[in-house]
Amino acid sequence: MNRHAVYHITETPYAYGKDLNTLLIRIRTAKNDIKKCNLYYRDRYNSQTPYYVKEMKIVAQANLFDYFETEISIKRNRYRYYFELIDTNNTKVYFDERGFRDSKKVQEEFTAFQFAYLAPGDLYKESIWLQESVVYQIFPDRFYNGHTANDPENTSTWGSSVTINSKFGGDLKGIIDKLDYIEDLCVNLLYLTPIFKSSSNHKYNTADYYDIDPQFGTLDTAKELVKKCHEKGIKIIFDAVFNHSGSDFFAFKDLLINQEASKYKDWYFIDDYPVSTDKVNYYTFGNGVSKMPKLNTNNKEVRKYLLDVGEYWIKEIGIDGWRLDVSDEIDHDFWRAFNKVVKGANKDAVIIGEIMHEANSFLKGDQMDSIMNYPFKYALVDFFANRSICVEKFDDILSFNRTLYMNSITRQLWNLIGSHDTKRFLTECDDNIERMKLAIAFQFCYQGVPYIYYGDEIGLNGGDDPQCRKCMVWEEEKQNKELFNLYKTMISIRKNNKVLIYGDYKTLYCKDNVLIFKRSYKSESILIAINNNDEERSINISLDHIAIDIFTSQRKKSYNDLSLEPMGFKIFKLI
Amino acid sequence: MNRHAVYHITETPYAYGKDLNTLLIRIRTAKNDIKKCNLYYRDRYNSQTPYYVKEMKIVAQANLFDYFETEISIKRNRYRYYFELIDTNNTKVYFDERGFRDSKKVQEEFTAFQFAYLAPGDLYKESIWLQESVVYQIFPDRFYNGHTANDPENTSTWGSSVTINSKFGGDLKGIIDKLDYIEDLCVNLLYLTPIFKSSSNHKYNTADYYDIDPQFGTLDTAKELVKKCHEKGIKIIFDAVFNHSGSDFFAFKDLLINQEASKYKDWYFIDDYPVSTDKVNYYTFGNGVSKMPKLNTNNKEVRKYLLDVGEYWIKEIGIDGWRLDVSDEIDHDFWRAFNKVVKGANKDAVIIGEIMHEANSFLKGDQMDSIMNYPFKYALVDFFANRSICVEKFDDILSFNRTLYMNSITRQLWNLIGSHDTKRFLTECDDNIERMKLAIAFQFCYQGVPYIYYGDEIGLNGGDDPQCRKCMVWEEEKQNKELFNLYKTMISIRKNNKVLIYGDYKTLYCKDNVLIFKRSYKSESILIAINNNDEERSINISLDHIAIDIFTSQRKKSYNDLSLEPMGFKIFKLI
Repeated sequence: MNRHAVYHITETPYAYGKDLNTLLIRIRTAKNDIKKCNLYYRDRYNSQTPYYVKEMKIVAQANLFDYFETEISIKRNRYRYYFELIDTNNTKVYFDERGFRDSKKVQEEFTAFQFAYLAPGDLYKESIWLQESVVYQIFPDRFYNGHTANDPENTSTWGSSVTINSKFGGDLKGIIDKLDYIEDLCVNLLYLTPIFKSSSNHKYNTADYYDIDPQFGTLDTAKELVKKCHEKGIKIIFDAVFNHSGSDFFAFKDLLINQEASKYKDWYFIDDYPVSTDKVNYYTFGNGVSKMPKLNTNNKEVRKYLLDVGEYWIKEIGIDGWRLDVSDEIDHDFWRAFNKVVKGANKDAVIIGEIMHEANSFLKGDQMDSIMNYPFKYALVDFFANRSICVEKFDDILSFNRTLYMNSITRQLWNLIGSHDTKRFLTECDDNIERMKLAIAFQFCYQGVPYIYYGDEIGLNGGDDPQCRKCMVWEEEKQNKELFNLYKTMISIRKNNKVLIYGDYKTLYCKDNVLIFKRSYKSESILIAINNNDEERSINISLDHIAIDIFTSQRKKSYNDLSLEPMGFKIFKLI
Repeated sequence: MNRHAVYHITETPYAYGKDLNTLLIRIRTAKNDIKKCNLYYRDRYNSQTPYYVKEMKIVAQANLFDYFETEISIKRNRYRYYFELIDTNNTKVYFDERGFRDSKKVQEEFTAFQFAYLAPGDLYKESIWLQESVVYQIFPDRFYNGHTANDPENTSTWGSSVTINSKFGGDLKGIIDKLDYIEDLCVNLLYLTPIFKSSSNHKYNTADYYDIDPQFGTLDTAKELVKKCHEKGIKIIFDAVFNHSGSDFFAFKDLLINQEASKYKDWYFIDDYPVSTDKVNYYTFGNGVSKMPKLNTNNKEVRKYLLDVGEYWIKEIGIDGWRLDVSDEIDHDFWRAFNKVVKGANKDAVIIGEIMHEANSFLKGDQMDSIMNYPFKYALVDFFANRSICVEKFDDILSFNRTLYMNSITRQLWNLIGSHDTKRFLTECDDNIERMKLAIAFQFCYQGVPYIYYGDEIGLNGGDDPQCRKCMVWEEEKQNKELFNLYKTMISIRKNNKVLIYGDYKTLYCKDNVLIFKRSYKSESILIAINNNDEERSINISLDHIAIDIFTSQRKKSYNDLSLEPMGFKIFKLI
């Protein structure tokens, strides 16, 4: 047995409350090493009752490891447990808080793992509506100009070439005008990049957190947008930039004027005086971005100010949550307070972090509900778009990604394939539409929330910022209808098959750039086959189910001849 | 290379702020597998600067694993890093967020580990005074009867046999009367088991959190005790029983009377009505302990009530912190709020959890400062007292224990060898005083806060509760002075050699039930040799230092003939 590989801690994601009466337990072992894994458990006080035994099942295989999981339940929610591992050589070993033992006797006493109490106060409440969402990200300046009277000076002609400082006049009225289009696409969650008063086109340098940027509209326009979205059953999320303010935010302006005498000098991190935007002798976002001085969220006044902002927009206009910019550079204590404020204002509101990396410390349930899942994006870019990795590596990266968080959080991750911060996916594909289509098919059948960056659905392309922020193309003849219809089809399939939302994920075949996987939820199962080759593939795979092709309704009794067209995919219901 | 063994996460205790400008990074590898481990790191935004490189050092070897550690620092505290591992076969591999790579090229881009920002709000502030403490635990009913007028009915004769319900009349005045004794012993931190109003002798079933038990004294006696302790430079900690109340606490009494109509029905967890202490149809501490109904700390009123209690005693009488009973059965959110309240009332106050098992989820810096280190106690019982484990296992258990938490927390753990909840250590030793002496010598030279359970210092023995709660023996002729003097000596050695408090720990020799280890802090080093054999041992061990025997002041140039008496120990300063 490979003992070095065995890993378990009594914390998320290895041990956590799935609900008030269910403890989920996970253990990691070496890949293909353990043929049977049993969990022994009992009430941690009631030493009279024998241990229960439950066999654990493999839920993910990633690179070097297998991940076994099971759910257990005990009346008073106080758990004592240990593992029995039987490897492929039939060696049996017990694993507890102190390590390995050959006999289970001692484990049953002091050294068993303890999940002392599944406390209601520690339980994470998953967001079903978030799991059922399809996100549509809008960069307001580039979506649609609904109201030309508020256009900035030197507004560029819609669709003309983009520079880093271009403004095109897109606004909130434009989004309202295009809600029918959005409804037709069938997405149900809008995420807007920042719309508060700010000098830039992207508005990530906030000048006033309480004011809608006049180039985008007014408080009333924002209210109308939220109201109309809700009427259509579409939720809407704003972008909170709390890591830094704009340099024209009142507090930083005061600091620039009054220097060390400023009441706001502790709102920022100042190297030395006089503070100057030329010298950039203060802590900023990124590498010395002078217009984005970093806020000191450990300062009580700053905290209160930002928490109030978080509450205000939920209460005042009813947004359904926040996306948090650069959220990994703000302390956990702030996000815990933010979580209380936001959920206090609306218990169903959600909090999405911009964290591009492993983020378990933010996703234990007390801070954020989800993050933008960039590792997902990079895997899809590498496998489908530029084909720099094989299917085995692709499967491995995603499998590992599924082991990082609580399962409910994994179902809530925003699975993007591009954003305003990256090359467009179609450009990553060298404008090869077939590659993009296959990636989209995969994206909508996978675990987690599918995410569309405005324009992707009609074939908008573009390289790195600012080219990925081109104006939306509204002339139908210039829109790629094939792509649009595929999105609509996939959204509809996802909506009609909850198994794609709630279901487990299991890889069935992963070879020669063909991936076949199964999603299962309760009695429902769906099988998805993806052929990332420029040639046809015929796969032999046996299953004990009848399969119905979701597109053709054709029945199949076995898969001995599952043929996949070049860059093709198939989706089957298993009955 | 054993890749399965390699483990790192961007969280405590594998990555955390040591101070505002220092990030501590730890990585686990297979034991004796990696001969060199380098950390590559840089500012996570400034892609123009090359990566810095720092070699990591092994800080612990436990069972299957080595633990490498280093500290790094970067101006803006935003880190991007990855590891270079070179094994004993000279195979070189890189390890980052996605796993292993043969080349470092790709690591420097997207897949490096990210410690996005060492935020001041996340930084744990260690307690220097706690690290410098020696704890003395008092069970007040059994320590000294200073005031007979408040003796309960049927007070047993001091020193007579103990039953589960005995009361002996010990009280706070008794502790005040014996402060000179405590001062003479040179301990500097008193921990009292509960002293609030309660019907039992142990008082873990609180009837009134705002009242001193009349059998123990009054508010004034408690104030006098705290004041007199502080005058002698002794800190004092009370016991907070927040997991459950007594069944005679006002809220539960109201519930018993008014049943479902009670205002307090959500303060507890009720199975069904009518609630009855006979049926015990409610959630209790332990296995149906009817007098200890579990409090619902997720209820806002309960939370406020208990948090107010936590604040009151610090502000009202100036205690220096709390020991928290059954703290692992209360939610993290409660303890975070408790931490804020307690540190708000006195920033230097400390919070010690009663958690007998691995407790990282409580010890990340936002909840508790320390726990009662029961794994330490069990290791010492098994090695020194009943000799059921060999020195290699002993070293292994403690080494593993040192890898669980931030280093500052490890230095603050309450390293007990017994308490009111366990057999006395001397009884575990079958009353063999030599075994106990050796254990004490070890305890005071080890990392963490030494802890004396009243009476241990004069040779009090006793089996499981209630025998471990016998009356303190005050007749000098019945006290074991040899033990008392050893405690005094060891306390004095620890106080005069800060290296024993702050120093790193390194095992130098671990074989044949002889343990030799080194503690190092800045330029100071101390070497401790322990011979847990009934025969003399002579050890060959070479060191590049001159060693001075701390007891005899003899100088030694080498250790080729380090002779240890049966059950003997030696302590050397290395110069």
